[in-house]
This record gives sequence, structure tokens and C-alpha cells, in this order.
Amino acid sequence: MRAGVFFSIVVTALILSACESDTDVSRHPNLLVAAQDVAAMKRADGVSAPLFADALQQAQTEVDAAMAQALDIPLPKDPGGGYSHERHKKNALLLFQAGQLYTIKGDPRYANWAAEVLVRYADLYPTLGLHPEHKHQAPGKLFWQILNDAWWLTYVIQAYDMVLPAMTEDQRAQVESRLLRPYADFLSKESASTFNKVHNHGTWAAAAVGMTGLVLADDYYVNIALKGLDQSGKAGFLKQMDQLFSPDGYYTEGPYYQRYALLPFVMFARALDRHKPSMGIFEYRDRILIKAIYAAIQLTDGHYFLPLNDAIKDKGLDTIEMVYGVSIAYAKTQDKNLLAIARKQNQVVLTGDGLRVAVDLARSADVQFPFSSQLFRDGPNGDEGAVALLRAGDTTVVFKAASQGMGHGHFDRLGWQLYSQGAEIVSDYGAARYLNVEPKQGGIYLPENTSWAKQTVAHNALVVDRTSHFDGSVKRASKSSPELLQFVRGEQWQLVSAREANAYKGVVMTRTQILLEHPLLSGPLVLDLLAAESDEQHVYELPVHFQGQLMTFSGELAVNTDALKPLGTQNGYQHLWHKATLAPAAHRPLQASWLSNNRFYTLTAVAPADQTLLVAELGANDPEFNLRRDQALIARAETSGGVQFVQLLEQHGHYDGRAETVSQPRSAIARAAIEQHPGAQVLTLDTVSGQTLRIVLADDRAPERQHALSLGEQRVQWQGPVHLLVNH
Amino acid sequence: MRAGVFFSIVVTALILSACESDTDVSRHPNLLVAAQDVAAMKRADGVSAPLFADALQQAQTEVDAAMAQALDIPLPKDPGGGYSHERHKKNALLLFQAGQLYTIKGDPRYANWAAEVLVRYADLYPTLGLHPEHKHQAPGKLFWQILNDAWWLTYVIQAYDMVLPAMTEDQRAQVESRLLRPYADFLSKESASTFNKVHNHGTWAAAAVGMTGLVLADDYYVNIALKGLDQSGKAGFLKQMDQLFSPDGYYTEGPYYQRYALLPFVMFARALDRHKPSMGIFEYRDRILIKAIYAAIQLTDGHYFLPLNDAIKDKGLDTIEMVYGVSIAYAKTQDKNLLAIARKQNQVVLTGDGLRVAVDLARSADVQFPFSSQLFRDGPNGDEGAVALLRAGDTTVVFKAASQGMGHGHFDRLGWQLYSQGAEIVSDYGAARYLNVEPKQGGIYLPENTSWAKQTVAHNALVVDRTSHFDGSVKRASKSSPELLQFVRGEQWQLVSAREANAYKGVVMTRTQILLEHPLLSGPLVLDLLAAESDEQHVYELPVHFQGQLMTFSGELAVNTDALKPLGTQNGYQHLWHKATLAPAAHRPLQASWLSNNRFYTLTAVAPADQTLLVAELGANDPEFNLRRDQALIARAETSGGVQFVQLLEQHGHYDGRAETVSQPRSAIARAAIEQHPGAQVLTLDTVSGQTLRIVLADDRAPERQHALSLGEQRVQWQGPVHLLVNH
Repeated sequence: MRAGVFFSIVVTALILSACESDTDVSRHPNLLVAAQDVAAMKRADGVSAPLFADALQQAQTEVDAAMAQALDIPLPKDPGGGYSHERHKKNALLLFQAGQLYTIKGDPRYANWAAEVLVRYADLYPTLGLHPEHKHQAPGKLFWQILNDAWWLTYVIQAYDMVLPAMTEDQRAQVESRLLRPYADFLSKESASTFNKVHNHGTWAAAAVGMTGLVLADDYYVNIALKGLDQSGKAGFLKQMDQLFSPDGYYTEGPYYQRYALLPFVMFARALDRHKPSMGIFEYRDRILIKAIYAAIQLTDGHYFLPLNDAIKDKGLDTIEMVYGVSIAYAKTQDKNLLAIARKQNQVVLTGDGLRVAVDLARSADVQFPFSSQLFRDGPNGDEGAVALLRAGDTTVVFKAASQGMGHGHFDRLGWQLYSQGAEIVSDYGAARYLNVEPKQGGIYLPENTSWAKQTVAHNALVVDRTSHFDGSVKRASKSSPELLQFVRGEQWQLVSAREANAYKGVVMTRTQILLEHPLLSGPLVLDLLAAESDEQHVYELPVHFQGQLMTFSGELAVNTDALKPLGTQNGYQHLWHKATLAPAAHRPLQASWLSNNRFYTLTAVAPADQTLLVAELGANDPEFNLRRDQALIARAETSGGVQFVQLLEQHGHYDGRAETVSQPRSAIARAAIEQHPGAQVLTLDTVSGQTLRIVLADDRAPERQHALSLGEQRVQWQGPVHLLVNH
Repeated sequence: MRAGVFFSIVVTALILSACESDTDVSRHPNLLVAAQDVAAMKRADGVSAPLFADALQQAQTEVDAAMAQALDIPLPKDPGGGYSHERHKKNALLLFQAGQLYTIKGDPRYANWAAEVLVRYADLYPTLGLHPEHKHQAPGKLFWQILNDAWWLTYVIQAYDMVLPAMTEDQRAQVESRLLRPYADFLSKESASTFNKVHNHGTWAAAAVGMTGLVLADDYYVNIALKGLDQSGKAGFLKQMDQLFSPDGYYTEGPYYQRYALLPFVMFARALDRHKPSMGIFEYRDRILIKAIYAAIQLTDGHYFLPLNDAIKDKGLDTIEMVYGVSIAYAKTQDKNLLAIARKQNQVVLTGDGLRVAVDLARSADVQFPFSSQLFRDGPNGDEGAVALLRAGDTTVVFKAASQGMGHGHFDRLGWQLYSQGAEIVSDYGAARYLNVEPKQGGIYLPENTSWAKQTVAHNALVVDRTSHFDGSVKRASKSSPELLQFVRGEQWQLVSAREANAYKGVVMTRTQILLEHPLLSGPLVLDLLAAESDEQHVYELPVHFQGQLMTFSGELAVNTDALKPLGTQNGYQHLWHKATLAPAAHRPLQASWLSNNRFYTLTAVAPADQTLLVAELGANDPEFNLRRDQALIARAETSGGVQFVQLLEQHGHYDGRAETVSQPRSAIARAAIEQHPGAQVLTLDTVSGQTLRIVLADDRAPERQHALSLGEQRVQWQGPVHLLVNH
């Protein structure tokens, strides 16, 4: 309802503001770089705005080097990563930088060079058909994917906006009629299905075409960008703002694509904000774009984006999308916390917004971004599951009970990850892809992305009968979402819980994760309870993909020392070498410990009693060595009538190789047992130092509910879902 | 001869200088902390000497915390890493720090506390027998190894030296008669075989006993420390200085133990330097201790010590031994380059020497340590082989043609390593040990140190018939050393060559490594030629243990996709899973490429023609998961009448995941062939860009020799062993 009201306001504002456009060259530039900021940008120096001065110097070095030799504008030929692909990308950025240099330094050589390059592209463009490597559904002309073509125009239209005051009328006519307009037409009318997609490819196209419309003062392009080709509002930028983010600013494909998708949103929005301030685009949908920028920051750990779904793990807060995002969010919020992110980025963009970040950062000493526990609901209405972050000290639990996330989604319902000290400890594989590494199948998603990375066993999620959720069908998976049950915290605990009833027919999974802090524990402890209800007999397997060097085991360890076989033949299992099996031994908890970043971690498998832990290493059936050699511990139980896995993930001790000191290399847990009492489960942990910690988990999780329980002779009373007891 | 002359001078000086000692408490302290430095140390502040002020603050924090509660002095019980072991270590350091705090801050609370602790140890010590965990040949009393006992006394005698002016006569008598003297007697007379060892364990004992003698003004202890128990000079500190370092300052056990061995040398020498300056201990043997400190610095890459022989890879330039080494070397040389190392250490010791480093570092802006290509001859006379470092830009080739290096030596004659950007690329496993990690067999060397880490196949060294050099016999290996043939450089190349005739009966190995820099190459290129001469039929295998993610292969790749078996059953092969075999394909060079730290590397196996490359991963027959999962490419050929392996290790391109740019992910080498011409071998490299680089390697390697050769119609003339030609 509310989004609908906003939409009406925006549409009205848009119609009213059409008269804001004109063709007076003195109104340019007015996209991310705006005329009113130019004076300040000219004054900026290395003392008042060191990062801005650095960026200007770097741009000058790059553009001067390019101008010193003939610029190659090759015929489109290569796929992603290949020469012509990279060259056209680089040319767009050089044009953009030349425009900035002209604007800031006033040196006409930059404008003249950019004008010449634009005219050369205007000569080339009308001669182009579809890119020769157009194997994909949506081919471009300069690039193999139209997505890249849209990207190119977002930079080139900004370059044009900056240099057009220095261009002759004839040059402008050529560039507009032979490059910009046909290019915008190709992205829109001639590629209607991409353009009308409510998807990040559509957003790039909308931003490129819309910004072109703003610069050319052609409202047609602006209107189709905002409301779709038929201008009905069923597609276009506003619809994308409505649909692609949840009310909490979560982008359904996950953080990696959230970062990527952000750029056209914030670029085009900032341009609209300047040209059509009455639209209030940054207020739209309860400030959804600002929320999305903040969500992207929160959805990182140790600098890097959480690798949910198809995600390459190299991407972090210092990617260019986030540098733009922070500058624009700072312009709209003046939130000093953002300067902490800018400090990590150690880079600003050459815009007025970037300048403001650089100046304020130079004046600010200690700024910290408040990374916090947070719930990100998924879906346009926030009712399609959620991603939850539980943070305590240097520990982060990532709990994913989100929707499928379209084609880049993985089959990982109720999966989780653990970060500690900014590093992955319980990890997600991310995507099987070497982006732009041409010898690796041209840099596209590898076959192992489907055969491994998307499969359920590749995640820290429950596998039933060695199949993947929804049998690996995106279509089936997209029809339903997990149900978030609780996201709540007490003084010593944080809890998240969700249910998934559709991933496997006849099996209802409920997973609860609790992050506990207690003086008896050497660091935040994760308690993981995963219940599967079913009437049938099933094999249940629950992987923990861990990063580190295995150290010790408790239980009966049988290692496959002189021959390895894959764990299975399909659904990802064919890629796992079976290295060992750990079986329960009397009077000892089932445990595996590893060392990572000089800290020890122990997984204790408390229940069910008759489970085994498989030790596996990735790399089987990988004929091109495409996979990393990650490792997993897989808890396995075969039952009829359901199962409850109860696991603890403990952090302990320290290894200091320099000083040759080692503390607490073993788990503090000597015994662990879980019992169902009336109204509550009680997990009893006996520590090696002889103390007992009881974690009482009420069946009824209502935060205000009062509970009471008899434990032996002790009467225990508490409020809320979780209660901790020592030595009772 | 020369060492002999020096020895006489020292002995004379020693006898003459006996009168320098006295028992006047005002002469204390006079070991590493000396009375004449105290005034300056009292004046030091956070502005003039920030690192010194930091160290003082840290010491105060630690000692204040210890003084605030009862200090535990447990009965000796645990092995290395256990509680009593760690507690006694910590107590010695706390005593030492308390002495420093008393000296610098003048607060008698520190001296009183230290005096009390010393008296408590004096009460305990006479009650102790051998440590209960005395499984080792040389047990201690406080610790399981006497080595640790010696270490303890070197710190405690310094503590005593600092606090004795504040102690009562009665306390001093107790501590000297019940702790220091019996302790020194135990380390010397009662442990004669360790004390008289020309080995780092002997050096620790000599330093502890000798420093005790200096403080107690008891020349007997000083004399036996310097010249062995019988004072003949056949053992003791001077003999150790003669024998344990080569004339280039190389310590025969390798850099990891060089670091460890350095500390007692430089501590005791600095103490002698103060008490008996006329000895000129730092001038002894052509300044051998200063050379040893510089050698230790050079024998690092990217901060870490080169892991030759038994070595744990965590140790780098910031270990406490190097902090002392730098402070003392700086005191004796005033070489500002050392300040660059101190800057990396970001730490100084609380001595006058440490203060001088802190003050001068605070005043120095840009200091760089000149890491360089260097030859370190091995053996007391420098004629027992050598370790060579070839450095170019951010690339380092480590070539090991050194002697066995005693019990910690590995069977790795003519092995090598490659570092790039400060990271291991072609790596050595180092030691199989988790130092002080008690659950890993108490933290001692693991069984896999013998079954894997010491074996030849664990190194980048030639394996014949799948046996290790000298059949793994330290005794046999210690009888001979490789012969260094050349270490020479030209403008575009650096060359090292050595021969090993004894590692395998009937096989003479000669290895030449050349580090080449040429504009046609994207980075320094390693050319590796390994010739094995033999009359018999042998299987030759040459491993390259690489770090990184395999990317691509050129050749016929057969991957063991659905079952893995170990490569062999013994001599280390039992630990290698056989993952794939790469066989030659017509008209294509045999190549494997990998990605490491965002740079690509390609191994091209040029010769012999009929070799295969095995791809292996470590971890078979490892029932306790003690081994890291490192990887290797093993070139394999079976011939009668010898073989010559010719390999190229190329660095190329760049992967930037943040900016999504990738350059040159493939080898630049399209074809490679080597031919013997009259008087020279010619390696012809055809690049993918269509150029040809010829590397001409003269059979006669004399640096001044003139050569001429006809290549097709071209007459080529040059001087020296290597010549580069383009497009001929």
C-alpha cells in the first residue's frame, strides 16, 4: 500500500519536473559531477582532501599516459576478459576520467581528446551488428553481453555530460545522433526483454538510458527508464526499486550481486536527484536506496561480502560500487560512521560527493562503523524469509533463511556461516568461477558451479537422502520461502530460528542458532539445533565446511590412508573425497578441532547419539582442477521419524608461533548432553575444568514468557527463550 | 690459521682481564643492561624513543599484573607446552622484566618482588631431581630438556644482575649458593656432554654459565664457558664461534636454527664485551657474530626465515632473537639499514642498545634494508657447499647446496625454492611439527617429519629410483658436501651451479639455476638445468612443490577423477596422492600454470622429451591429519645413461578480483627447445607474440671466457657463461 502511494507521488513529480530539462550547455555537467561542485573541486588540495588529490593525480597519470599514444578502438571480438572486451571497458573509464580532469583542471586538452574519442566511437557504432560472441541470451554490440554495453554507456554518458560544453555543435550532433541515441535505442527498444526486466540487468539498462535522457534533455528516455518501455510503471527503475530490495534493503540475489546492482541504482538516483530534485528519489520507499547501501556494508565481514549464492570472494568494501555508494550515502545522510568505511576504501570518487567524504575524513580521527547483529528480511514485502547476522566481539554468525534469489541462488535453505577475526571459519564455497580468467572457460561460471557450488551439500545446510533442496530446481525453489520464526536477543545470547517445509517433500526442517557469551566460554559459542520432522526413513547429513588445519578428534577415527573414493556420484557428493569417518566412542563427545588464523575451533556433535562425522575434501571428479580443495565435516544419521542435530562450535585458545606460546588447544567441553524436559530442552556442558554450564531452551520462544523447571532438586525460573545456569 | 691467531689473542686477553671483575654492587648491572646506560634509559620518553616507551609500558603492565597476585612456582611436571613448562618460562621473563623496571624506574617494589621470587626458586632448586618427563637424552630439572634450563638461566642471571644491588646480603648468599651456583654446576659439570657440545645446546649452556660467572665474578665459570670444561679450548663458546658458523656467517643447521642459536651468542658476547672489552669478542674471527646477524636477516623472504631443514614457518624477523640481534648489531655497527628491520619488528629491547635503536629509528624516515643476491658458504672453513640467494625485484631464488646440517638437516641436495612478492611459490615443506601444541604429540617433531618432511621427495630436489639422498642416513650424508661450481652474475642474469656426487651411488648430479630478466619476459624467469650422469637405468623424478590454485595445463592431462592412490609406499611417496598425469602432446610444450597471490606462474618442462608430469597432493597415510595438504608437480623420466631436466618457471600477468581485471593468464612461451651446440647449450623460446628469445649457456662457465657460435647463418660472440639473443 505504502509503496503505491509513494509511486503516485513520484510519477506526479516526474511529470511536473519535465520542464526542468533544457539544452543550455552551462547546465552541464549535472550527473554525478555537478556544476555547483566544480569550484570546490578546483580548490581541493592534498592537505584538505588527500584522498581526492590522490584520485585526481591517479586519473591524470592514467589519462595522460593514454593520451600520449594512439587510443585503440578495436572491433568487438573477444568475450569477457579478452582484449577487445577489456579495451572498451578501459576506454569508457578513460573517457570518464578525461571528463573529470577537464571539469576540475579546466585543461581543454582533456575535453578535446575525449571529444575525439567520442566521435570515433560515433563513427564505429553505426557499423556494428551483434557481438560475434553472442552465445548468450542477451548479446550486446561492443560486448558479448548487453549488460556490459549498458555499463559502458553509464560511464560514457557522464563523460559526455562533462565535456560537451567544450565540443563543437557538429561534434555533439555526431555523437548524439550516431552514438548516444542509437546506443540508448539498442539498450531499450531493441532489447525490450532485458530493458523491461525487473532484475539488475534491467537496472543497468535503465540507468544508462535514463542518464542519457537527462543529458540529452529527452524525457522519452527518462520516462521509459523510470517506468518501462510502455511507460506503464510495470517495469523500469521505480519498479526495480520496489521489487529488487526488501524493506530492509536486502537484494534478493545476495550481497555479491547487491554490491553490483547498487551502482546503477545510486548513480541514476543521484542524477535524478540533481535534475529532478522534486522527485525525492532518495526518499522513495522509505529511503530504500540508502537502506540498501547500509545493508551492503553490514553484509560484509572482515572487509569481504558474505558469499551467499553465486559470489566470488575477492569482492569487498573497497570495490568501486561501494566507493560510489558511500559517497552518495554520505551526501544524503552526513552519517560520520560512513567515513570509517571510506577510510578502509582509502579511495574517493572524483565528484562533489567524493570530495565531501575526503574533506570530512581528513578532519575525522576515530570513526568506527557499527557492524551489528541485524535481520535482513527478504522479498519486496519482507515476507520471503531473511538473512540474519548475529555478531559478538570478533565473531559473526550468518544465518540464511532467505528466498531462492533467482538464477544465481543456491540450494542452501537454513544454511549458515561463521566468521571469526574477520576470516571465514565455517564457510560457503561461493561461486565456482574465475571471473575474467580467460583460460578458465572464458571466465564464466564453470560447470562445477552447478555440479558443486549450488548443490545443498556444498553448504552448511541439511541434506536429506543425498539430494539437493527442491531437487535443484530453481523454478520449484522460487515458489516458496523459509519462514522466519524468531530473531531475538538476551544479555548473554542471541537467537535466530527459521523453518523450511518445502525443500524436501515430507520433511519439515527447523533450525535454531544461538550465539552465546559466557565467562565459562573462551569465546562466543554457537549452539546449533536442527530438527527434521518426517514420518519416513531418511539419511540426514549436515555439513560443516571449515577453513583450517585439522588438529584433533575425539571419537573413533578411521582414516582412509591409502585410497580415496568420492562420497557419492551426484548432487555434489561426486566432488567430495571421503578422507575419514569419526564414530562415537563411549564416554567421549564426538569432536573435531582445527586451527585457523592462530585460533582453535572445535565442533562438538552432541546429538543424535548414533551419528558419525565424515571428513571430506573437495576435488573429486574435477577434470580441469576448477575447484578449490576445501574441507568439510559431515554429520550423518539415518533415522525413521525425524532427527535433531545438536552441534556446538567453540572457539578456544591461541597459537603464537613467533613467541612459541600456545594456550588451550583443546576443547573446554568434556561432556555434552541434551535432554528434553517439560517445556524446555536442557543442554548440559561439563567443562574440563570441572564446571557445568546448562543452556535451557524453552519450547515456547516468546520473549516475554515466564518459565519454570525442576532440574534435580533445583527449581529454575526465567523469562524468555534462553537461560544459562552454572554449576547446578 | 687466522682463527688460531685470534684464539691466542683472546685467551691472553682473557687471562689479563680476569682482574676486571669484582664484587662491588655498584658495578651492576653490567650484562645487556649496563649501569652506564641507565641515566639515558630513565630519560627516554614516548617522543624521543616511542618503541622504548612502549616496551617499558608493556613490561610494567605485565609485571604489575603478576605482582598483584601470588606467583605460582610449580613443581616441574609437564613437557613443552604444558603448564609447569610455560609457567617457569614466564617466571624467568617476569624476573627479567622486573629487573629492567627496577633499573629504569628505580621503584624498589620491583626489586623486592624479584628478590622474593629468586629466594623462592633458591628454596625449590636444591630439592629438584631430573625432570619427570626426562625421556630425552639431555634432561633438565625445571624443564624436560636441559636446553630450556639453560635458556632460563640466561634470563634469570640478568634479572639477578639488575636487582642484586637492592637485595640483602643474606638474600644474595641464598640465591647464589642455593640457586645460581648449583644451577650453573648442573648445566656444566653435571651435564658435561651437553656443555661440551659444539652445537647450539652447548652455546645456550655456555652463555648461561658464562654470564653467571661474569655476575658472580667467578672466572671459573667464565673460563669453562669460553673454553670448555677442561678449559682446553676444544669446546666452549670460542670453539662454537669457530665451528658453528661458516666464514659468511651461515649456521649449518639453517636459518630457522640460526635465529635460535644467535641469541646466546649475541647475549653472552655483549656481556663479555662489557666485562672484558679487551677481548674484542665482536672482532673475533673477522666479526663473525655480526656477519651471522646479517646472514640471518638476508636468509629471510617476505619477513619469514627460509624454511631450510627442520623449520617452522611462523618465525620471522620480529622474533625476540632478531630484536636482540638487531639492537646489538646496531650498537656495534651503527648501520642505519638495520633500522629498517627494527621498523618491521616494531619492538625494541629494554637495554641501552634497544634505546639507541628506538631513538635513531624515531629520527629516521626512509630506511631500507638492502636484501640482495648473496652466497653463504657452509662449513667452518666455507668449503662444505653453500646456500645461494638470487634476487631480482620481488623475486628470490633460494638454491641449497649446503652440507647436511646435522640432525635437523633434510635430504635435499641441490634443492631450491622460489619466492615472489614475499610469498612462497616453489616451496619447502619445512618441519612437520606443531610447536608447543600439546595435542599434537606434545608439540615435538611428528613422525611425519621423518617419513615426509626430511625425505628427498618432499623437496625440490632430484629423486633417483624413489629413494632419498644417502638412503636417508644422516651419518652418510654428513660425510660429504656438494661442490659449489659457480655463483656469478651478468647484466640480465644471475647464475648458480653446484654438483653433488655422493647422494646416490653411481649418479652425479649437476644443477644450474639462472634467474633471467629480459624485456620479453613479464617478470624474472627461472631457468633450471639439472643433469644426472649415470651409466645405469634409473627412474628420475624432480618435484616442484608449488603454492597456489592450479589453472591450466598444456599436454595430455589424465586426471584420477574417481579414485586416488598414493604414489608409492615409502621414502615419502606414501604420503602423496596421485591426482593426475600430464603427458607430452605433439607441438605443445609440457606446462602447468597456477595462480598465487594474484599472479600467474607457469612451469614449462622443456626436457627430456619423453617425461611426464605427475600432479600430487600431500595427505596420504596420514592417520592423524598431521600434514598440510600441499601440492607438487613431479617431472618423471626413466632413462639409461643419465638425463638432463630443463625447466622454466615463469611469472606472468595479474588477477585483480576487486577491479575485475585479468592480464596475461597464460604462459608467454609457445614453444621451447634446448639444443647442444659446440661449446654451448641453446634454449630457444618462441613467445606467443611471435618473438624468439635464445638463452645461450656456455659449457665453460668461466666469467671472462670469450665464446663464439654459429646459429644458422648468424655468428654469435659473447663473453661469460650466459648470453641472451632476441629474434635470431
